Amino acid sequence: MAERIYASYWFETGGDPARAADTIAGEQSSGTFVALPTETPELKARSGARVERLEVLGTSPTPSLPTPKVSSVYTQCLLELSWPIENLGACLPTLMATVAGNLYELRSVTGLRLLDLQLPLSFAAAYPGPAFGIQGTRGLAGVQTGPLIGTIIKPSVGLSPEETAQQVRELVAGGIDFIKDDELQADGPHCPFEDRVRLVMDVVNDHAARTGKKAMVAFNLTGDLDRMRRRHDIVLAHGGTCVMVCLNAVGLVGLHELRRHSQLPIHGHRAGWGALSRSPALGFDYAPLQKIWRLAGADHLHVNGLRNKFSEPDDSVIAAARAVLAPVMPGVDMPAMPVFSSGQTGLQAHDTYAAIGCADLIHTAGGGIFGHPQGVSAGVEALRASWDAAMAGESLAARAAQVPVLARALEFWK
Amino acid sequence: MAERIYASYWFETGGDPARAADTIAGEQSSGTFVALPTETPELKARSGARVERLEVLGTSPTPSLPTPKVSSVYTQCLLELSWPIENLGACLPTLMATVAGNLYELRSVTGLRLLDLQLPLSFAAAYPGPAFGIQGTRGLAGVQTGPLIGTIIKPSVGLSPEETAQQVRELVAGGIDFIKDDELQADGPHCPFEDRVRLVMDVVNDHAARTGKKAMVAFNLTGDLDRMRRRHDIVLAHGGTCVMVCLNAVGLVGLHELRRHSQLPIHGHRAGWGALSRSPALGFDYAPLQKIWRLAGADHLHVNGLRNKFSEPDDSVIAAARAVLAPVMPGVDMPAMPVFSSGQTGLQAHDTYAAIGCADLIHTAGGGIFGHPQGVSAGVEALRASWDAAMAGESLAARAAQVPVLARALEFWK
Repeated sequence: MAERIYASYWFETGGDPARAADTIAGEQSSGTFVALPTETPELKARSGARVERLEVLGTSPTPSLPTPKVSSVYTQCLLELSWPIENLGACLPTLMATVAGNLYELRSVTGLRLLDLQLPLSFAAAYPGPAFGIQGTRGLAGVQTGPLIGTIIKPSVGLSPEETAQQVRELVAGGIDFIKDDELQADGPHCPFEDRVRLVMDVVNDHAARTGKKAMVAFNLTGDLDRMRRRHDIVLAHGGTCVMVCLNAVGLVGLHELRRHSQLPIHGHRAGWGALSRSPALGFDYAPLQKIWRLAGADHLHVNGLRNKFSEPDDSVIAAARAVLAPVMPGVDMPAMPVFSSGQTGLQAHDTYAAIGCADLIHTAGGGIFGHPQGVSAGVEALRASWDAAMAGESLAARAAQVPVLARALEFWK
Repeated sequence: MAERIYASYWFETGGDPARAADTIAGEQSSGTFVALPTETPELKARSGARVERLEVLGTSPTPSLPTPKVSSVYTQCLLELSWPIENLGACLPTLMATVAGNLYELRSVTGLRLLDLQLPLSFAAAYPGPAFGIQGTRGLAGVQTGPLIGTIIKPSVGLSPEETAQQVRELVAGGIDFIKDDELQADGPHCPFEDRVRLVMDVVNDHAARTGKKAMVAFNLTGDLDRMRRRHDIVLAHGGTCVMVCLNAVGLVGLHELRRHSQLPIHGHRAGWGALSRSPALGFDYAPLQKIWRLAGADHLHVNGLRNKFSEPDDSVIAAARAVLAPVMPGVDMPAMPVFSSGQTGLQAHDTYAAIGCADLIHTAGGGIFGHPQGVSAGVEALRASWDAAMAGESLAARAAQVPVLARALEFWK
């Protein structure tokens, strides 16, 4: 049977929902604003997007987004469309133009959001997916069970390479599994990438040589393609085990080319995600975007964290993390590792574990580690103890009775 | 004096505007949610983003976007921030993470939109800008004055290469200046790119050999990088004079790499623009985005059209077109050609000319050309006559009295 691409949407219209659905399907395939004699019934049957499902959710007297087409009632709907793969081939950029292109601008909708995407197998044949994923990352980080306990270099930007290395020294001495650059820190003249990598990896490699424990450091190599490749090679040459890239900043071609070049896991940062998602009536859920990024090769994907300090609600965070861990399509796993961050401490371990049902994740904390009165090492140990308790089905209080650093942590985590 | 980057925003907050402005500046530079001892006064002075201007615009009792942080009043503000170039260097992807990154997710705002961007000269030194721009495009299209009169192959997707070439035959016989693929039409198995280019360029080259008039055809090469390069080479080998790419689909690295490879003008399609712009409380104005795309190398940039069939209002269209024609920064022109489309006819010529003050643009019409009762040639001639009238300061009615095909067009344009 011929392969088809399925996309589901929330949309709102001031007109007839069935007509709006047809307009959306037409705009994104063989149709246009006026009927054309060249859009024959055969062509439409072959190339037209198909309305697979249309469900009315509710109505409201005002539109979600401003519209030039005023109505007395606006109807919210769930819509599923499908396209024949023949329209575009297994091409992720053209997929984006097809499922997330002009339709957002249509006058017949007063809001539209892409909720999910079901791709046919030919996309999995055309794109590599994560080279390392969960198992590869665990192998390189030397963490076989439980989450990778991580943190971010702070201040976000402004430290010199020497100051960065000094912070890393403290963290690896404390037994941290994972450290990442901030997304603002790439290769500015005040903290050149190569110097930072060299000094940081000296610290990491020294510690590994002495203890056997090598922390994974995600160096932010975001930039133009040649520079990303060169920066990757610098990380590799210095024994580094991870690179980080800002997905929205480099785009799909940037990620795909990095994946083709990289011999290291790719830590995918989604800075700019709020612009794509924060209006509930516009943009994207994470489920479809993360599938595209995984196919293109991201090994780690940010999902915020429970009770985070940003604006994303917990249900969205949980849905995002579950999506990242679910198969990218039936029969094709391509798992990536969700990265939890923002206002995180051991207090979120139990809820996070309960919500996603596994510990195949990176849990990064800043203040939750650095704020420990007994130092970074105690902070790392306390966060790890929280996860051990969650995975053992034991309460934090019970575990704190056995682990003094956790007891102290519970006094300042909030 | 040290170079700085300036970005202006609209934002809304349920709290104190000055505090929200500080939070935004902190999140996008050296700050974080908690005060850190390593963020010394020296570091902050060196690397912190600076609040240059904060102006209260008004208040409302409800937030523009859903928020977990409820307030009784929400204040709308204009904000200008600046960053030292040392934080990032002249790097467009890191610029995106800096001026359009995490800040959209901040809990202290209930809406945030990037309005404009002033970049220092080092960006113009680091990035090439359009290779052809207005003059290069005019040269290749053989149109020295007035707009390029253009159209789009329709149906959007579904025609075979032969059917596409047949449509092009009709158009070039009608004297069209510019033809573009639809953004949905790239290299699907039903209409392979190479076959389409070969058959279309046979038609275009034949016509040029006979008449000296060579229409510019923008072939949509959107895809993975290797394929884009290969497709560009195919267009070049067949004597084509333009390639088209979906900017949001390939991302900044995709555009930059295409620019580095391309020997042809790059027609930048902004499919997906609605997702970035349609909520007035979120995302982007076009002014900052088009600067980034021009620096990276786009020669033509879509701006919708006056009284278009999408949802974008005329003032936004005019602002976008003016932005595309304005210098990318003081002293650096890098002009691109704005592309007007969607529901366009000669009826918009006068208003468009008055609004942007020149005719350095591509004006594409579908029904406005194909619908002419005397055929495509009359449709092209009528649209051109409208512009001639606009540029001569003559009314459409007066010109129609001299140009019969324009008189006929005025009967069906609406």
